[in-house]
This record gives sequence, C-alpha cells and structure tokens, in this order.
Amino acid sequence: MSKKGLLIVISGPSGAGKGTICKALMKEQQFWLSVSATTRSPRKGEVEGKSYYFLTVDDFKSKIAKDGFLEYAQVYDNYYGTPKKNVCEKIDKGENVILEIDIQGALKVKENYPEGVFIFILPPSMEELKKRIIGRGSETEKSLMTRFKSAYKEINYVSKYNYAVINDTVDSAVQKINSIIIAEKCRVDRIKDNIIDSKEGKIHEQFYD
Amino acid sequence: MSKKGLLIVISGPSGAGKGTICKALMKEQQFWLSVSATTRSPRKGEVEGKSYYFLTVDDFKSKIAKDGFLEYAQVYDNYYGTPKKNVCEKIDKGENVILEIDIQGALKVKENYPEGVFIFILPPSMEELKKRIIGRGSETEKSLMTRFKSAYKEINYVSKYNYAVINDTVDSAVQKINSIIIAEKCRVDRIKDNIIDSKEGKIHEQFYD
Repeated sequence: MSKKGLLIVISGPSGAGKGTICKALMKEQQFWLSVSATTRSPRKGEVEGKSYYFLTVDDFKSKIAKDGFLEYAQVYDNYYGTPKKNVCEKIDKGENVILEIDIQGALKVKENYPEGVFIFILPPSMEELKKRIIGRGSETEKSLMTRFKSAYKEINYVSKYNYAVINDTVDSAVQKINSIIIAEKCRVDRIKDNIIDSKEGKIHEQFYD
Repeated sequence: MSKKGLLIVISGPSGAGKGTICKALMKEQQFWLSVSATTRSPRKGEVEGKSYYFLTVDDFKSKIAKDGFLEYAQVYDNYYGTPKKNVCEKIDKGENVILEIDIQGALKVKENYPEGVFIFILPPSMEELKKRIIGRGSETEKSLMTRFKSAYKEINYVSKYNYAVINDTVDSAVQKINSIIIAEKCRVDRIKDNIIDSKEGKIHEQFYD
C-alpha cells in the first residue's frame, strides 16, 4: 500500500549464499538491482552500467564530495560504492531496489538510509558454511580457518538488521524475502501519511487509489 | 525461526470485515483462536469454551484481581475479556494465536502484550464501509450516520498498529496477513536471542534445529 518503493538490502557473511538468492529474486519479480561504481578497470566481458559503473578516481572522489554514495569503501587501490541517485529515483517511482552487499557496506547504508529493509542471510548451519568456504577452492588450511572464524564473528552483526533468513533452500529463502516485502508494504510506519492527513485529521480517499 | 508463537491481533472499525478475515485465516492454517470470557448468559446454540467462557460476575472480578485478562471491558451490565492464561500457554508452545477484537480492546492488549502483531483491517473504501454498515440492517438514517462517523474517526487509530491491511478481497487480505506472519517470524528483534548467546558472544548451534 506504500507508494514508495523499498530498498531491500541482502547482506550476510561470505558463503551464506547472498548472490544465489538475489539471482533467484530477480527471476521471480520485477526488482531493480543496484549496480555498484568502481575505479578498477573492467575485466573481460564486464559491461558498463550492468556489471559496474566504471569511474575514474577523480570522478569517484568528486561523487564522494557531493554525497553521491549510499556507501563506499576503498579496497587496496580501488574504490567501490553504491551510487545514491539511481537507487533513490527508482524508489521514488515506486520500484523496489535490491542491493546485495557485505556487512560493512550494509551498516553504512543503514546510516544513510535507515528506512531500508535490512535482511541478513544466514547459512543453514555453521558446518555447512565451513563446507561452502572449503568448496570455493584451493585455499590453505590456515586461510580457510581465518575465513571461517571471520564469518562466525560476522554473524554477530545480525542484531543490526531487521530480518534474518536462513538459506536452507534457495526457494524457501526467496519465499520468506517475498513475504517480508509484502509485510513491509503494509507497515503502518511506512503508510500512515498515505492514510491519514495528520494536519487535517482526515482520511485520504486517494489512499485507496 | 522464532520458537515462540505469535499473538496476531486482528482489529479495525466495525464493518471492515475482521470476522470474515479471521474465519478465512482459520481455514487456511493452524491457528488457535482466542475465546473471550463474558458474564452475560449464553444464547441458544452458544457453546462454553467455544463461543465464550461463561463466568459469574464474582469469578470474572476475581480473575481481574489476579491480573488474569489481557484486556477486559464492562458493556452495560456485562463484562467481556480476553483471558491471559490460555493465550500465553499456546504462545509458549510455539502456536500462533489469533485475537479478533475492536480497537479499544486492541489498544489495551498492546499495553499488556506489546510484542503482539497488531493488524488494522481497513475497509476497501469509505464508500464501501458506508454500504456495509447500511447492509447490516434496519438502522435509522441518524444512527447510521453516527456509526459511519464513528468508524471514520476510528480509522485514525491505525497509527497505533504495526500493520494496515485493506480488505479489498478476503483472499488478498489473508495472503497479506500470512506474509506478515512469515515476516514477523524472521524479525531479528524476536529471534536474536535464539541466534546469539549475548553473554558468551557465541552462535547457538541449536538455533538451527
């Protein structure tokens, strides 16, 4: 019933399955997937505006100065960020925007856009998370344990989120996220100004349009 | 993911269609419908423990003294109330409880049980609400306008609720309420103690059971 779209932030530890869930969400419904900006060079096959927005360091820095990002970070020599303009335009038009992002990024987005819907994806079990991290490839035993411990630690950040969804099967996780979106659209916090004109104490008939 | 059940409070102005929605909800899923207590005499066909719990005035008052109601009210000579014990027992067992109640009652329940899910049922339009109130029978023009005005006023209480659901069709309202229940079970506020042992800073493996 809300006229505005939602910013749905899909986040969680690496290995929880954020990417798979976002792909499945995009198949099922009309969402707009937020595209990141970066200063790193395009790799083979990457498409401007689809894989990333590829910016020069100067352009990126000038965008930072103009408060043009919902969040950004520097990773080694490169910048990565979520451009604010596109996301906000889509939301104002009533479209729902999906943003797949790591935990540090999500917490920054929350500072700038607290009305987003912050969903933490949990692995089906810690044992399964270990398996997934191992499955990703040829890491040494030591780096594996470091990654696992860091994921374990990261799960503590769940308390900063609105919702936690276990990725036991992709279908059930997607169904839960779809339910969360329907529920959020009914939240009185989001729609009460559409129902009642607080100055006049009247009910907006157009609310029912 | 929450182990506890939810108290789902279905409320709203008269004529919005609370009763129809609750019946449809009960058909679809395993809910436990809260039964009110009253001191009025049973009418023909009413069944103890199903239509109402029929209590003497003394019993009702002693239950009030023992803080045995989530809410109660006196209407003319009779008392009506929602007994606390049954509701809380079911919730502790993990069952979801549906409570159909008017706005004044819902606001009292919220004081005593703020962790409930408070859903306000809105009529499809103010015009439709008028029709429904007229359809209910042989009221005078004056009493009709009084009822309509009071329903109009009551809609302002939507701001005290968590969710608002338009009863345009029963199916779509029920689908929204089912989504709200799924979403509420994923709310971090409700489940974070199941995920993280805040004293130990550890993740509960049993959370995944």
